[in-house]
Amino acid sequence: VSEFIMKRCFGDPILDVMNFLNQVILENPQAISFAPGRPLESLFDVENTFKGIYNYVQAEAHRSSKPTETVWGSLGQYSWTSGFINQTIAKQLFHDENINVCPESIIITVGAQEAMAILLLGIFDVNEDVLLVSDPTYVGMTGLAKLLGIRLVPIPCGSNGVTAEALLLAIGKASSQGRARAIYDVPDFNNPLGTSVPLEERLKLLDLCHEHKLLYIEDNPYGMFCYDGEKLPTFKSLDKRGSVLYIASYSKTVFPGLRLGCLVADQMTSEGGRLALELSKVKSLITVNTSSICQCILASALASNNYTLEPLVSPKREYYRRCRDILLDCLSIEFADRTLFDWNCPRGGFFITLTLPFKCDSEDVRRCARDYGVIVCPMMFFSADSNRNSQVRLSFSYLAEHDIREGTRRFSRFCQERIRQLAYGKRV
Amino acid sequence: VSEFIMKRCFGDPILDVMNFLNQVILENPQAISFAPGRPLESLFDVENTFKGIYNYVQAEAHRSSKPTETVWGSLGQYSWTSGFINQTIAKQLFHDENINVCPESIIITVGAQEAMAILLLGIFDVNEDVLLVSDPTYVGMTGLAKLLGIRLVPIPCGSNGVTAEALLLAIGKASSQGRARAIYDVPDFNNPLGTSVPLEERLKLLDLCHEHKLLYIEDNPYGMFCYDGEKLPTFKSLDKRGSVLYIASYSKTVFPGLRLGCLVADQMTSEGGRLALELSKVKSLITVNTSSICQCILASALASNNYTLEPLVSPKREYYRRCRDILLDCLSIEFADRTLFDWNCPRGGFFITLTLPFKCDSEDVRRCARDYGVIVCPMMFFSADSNRNSQVRLSFSYLAEHDIREGTRRFSRFCQERIRQLAYGKRV
Repeated sequence: VSEFIMKRCFGDPILDVMNFLNQVILENPQAISFAPGRPLESLFDVENTFKGIYNYVQAEAHRSSKPTETVWGSLGQYSWTSGFINQTIAKQLFHDENINVCPESIIITVGAQEAMAILLLGIFDVNEDVLLVSDPTYVGMTGLAKLLGIRLVPIPCGSNGVTAEALLLAIGKASSQGRARAIYDVPDFNNPLGTSVPLEERLKLLDLCHEHKLLYIEDNPYGMFCYDGEKLPTFKSLDKRGSVLYIASYSKTVFPGLRLGCLVADQMTSEGGRLALELSKVKSLITVNTSSICQCILASALASNNYTLEPLVSPKREYYRRCRDILLDCLSIEFADRTLFDWNCPRGGFFITLTLPFKCDSEDVRRCARDYGVIVCPMMFFSADSNRNSQVRLSFSYLAEHDIREGTRRFSRFCQERIRQLAYGKRV
Repeated sequence: VSEFIMKRCFGDPILDVMNFLNQVILENPQAISFAPGRPLESLFDVENTFKGIYNYVQAEAHRSSKPTETVWGSLGQYSWTSGFINQTIAKQLFHDENINVCPESIIITVGAQEAMAILLLGIFDVNEDVLLVSDPTYVGMTGLAKLLGIRLVPIPCGSNGVTAEALLLAIGKASSQGRARAIYDVPDFNNPLGTSVPLEERLKLLDLCHEHKLLYIEDNPYGMFCYDGEKLPTFKSLDKRGSVLYIASYSKTVFPGLRLGCLVADQMTSEGGRLALELSKVKSLITVNTSSICQCILASALASNNYTLEPLVSPKREYYRRCRDILLDCLSIEFADRTLFDWNCPRGGFFITLTLPFKCDSEDVRRCARDYGVIVCPMMFFSADSNRNSQVRLSFSYLAEHDIREGTRRFSRFCQERIRQLAYGKRV
């Protein structure tokens, strides 16, 4: 048995994206990295948030007239599969996203990733159903679909993300392969593109979903990080016909170490049951329930902020906005020749798309890290579309100002060298 | 879309076992319940364990010469997919279970359940592989396999659990359906039976696994709760040929609210990589990583106990041992007629199997809870074998002495009534 043969899907490079990037980072500890899409630690305030558990225990002891010891004990115990802070989360979703659902329609998950796992395991019939995904897409979704053997149809994104026109074409394409069951997208400040779907297009997409009995899986980790003007309404808040399944993450708004997200599934099943209740059975088979310790730390943070994330997000938003502005500024200095380089100006989120005049692959990433001390993430890692081969995703959420400036300079030098090599027809 | 059609497997009653029992408990709040296999809260000491995070932060700040603020920040951040307390866990596994593996062969999981999800998703090819399961079995494993469409072949258990003879028969049966890939069992103080596999049989089973290139998935949540004599060596500690994948749970030894377990996979893949590393890719697609907050609470508890769970388990073991003895005593009083009733005397764990002279199903559970104020768990929920229809699982881990005594009396009265009804050929 010691020669262990893995499932076939392990050959798919998508399963190696994260490992590859981690390895490059480990091999080049001094390199400045635009690769990881993670929030900046110094903005977290973990210790104080953590202490919220004491407030939770006090409040709960008071409310239930039980000794604090009993409340502590119950936090150690197995708990409800769907979570026990659902009422708090329902209030937060209403305040922050205008999403109006009852606590029973919410499942508290181990981060947004578990919500994806619950959905793919719970609603996809591998032999019949096809998942449409905006392309490029977050690899956590496409990687999982591949692991499960779920067929994918990519929807090529434009500068405003997925359009109704592109979705309609994809639905047609999917029909030859099975039943188009759902579309997955990050419509606000997309990972990896940074794009946002305009309001008018949201309404058209929802009409189309309704018409084709297609579910819309809305993954919204970045929605509250809107830097210019008003944030757009979520698909879920616009949805009046039960088309949208909503995934929230508390990794960027609070911090990732809590591993908390939620899944909103307020539809009813054809047997008249609650979809969230059916899906909680899937959750029980993945992680039984989400850590009570982590749940009440989040509940306490929300309760002490009147059930809105705004006070927690506000300083983070200011910081990340400044990072975006610095990166845009640096790009306009270091990549001034717009006949060679192009980039978008996202209204929010963590990412910018930079288009280069050459193909950028793993080999480039390795060499650029080693020789120029800067790490970027090729867009091809997230895409089935060869048109994306010459793009990179730049994260600006994790770097200090001087690193953004120095990193952009370094990457510019790498690009200049690559362009010179291409002009001479060689590649070292 | 609002009429939501679920996947076919949702029709399988196994997915409803937990919900059914929870519902009966909710509908009969005064009933004494032998159903839930959970540890007793008053034995947890959550508050003090929780405070361990401060020791962890202090020690880590000292070790790394970083300010405590930085350490707190890193606990809030995304972390290694496989976990960061693996060295601590490796020491604990060695001290407590004589399992000698390097930290890189361990994945820290969100409870034992996630370890099962990682294995079924990672190593089973739905179209080829068959999973052999001891019968009856923990529904978290069989439910998940059914959700994934993995074919199951039950191995009927005897009074000492799975035998090599029964395994051989099951391998033969599986060969007509595909490739027998792995066997899953809880060999120590089995859930639901309470049985243990004798040492000699362990060696035979390991030989058989090696011979048939079969993996042995050892799920060991109860191993440290041995009440009589010496505990037996785990399969993993006996395995010298890479046959065993080991799953640990910290829910019974520490407390469930942490949601921590681990998966030991020290095999190498046919490509020469570490199996644990390949499986960590699966983990990243389920939950990204296990909460750092929870990980360091456990690490601190272990570090302050010289890397053994023994001081934490010892008082719990004493308590549960007494509960078992009380239940055995009650059974011999209330179910004295051994021509009608029979039960086993487990050497450890949380469960006793009681055999009744009639079939016990959901309807019985409902009626018994409503009319007699006691809840038991029918063995048929865990089994494909109709021979188990007249058995129930009694958990003794969650009840106080007087509840065990009163609950047994109540259940005895229910059984007497059922026997009288059967004698008169009716059922109300």
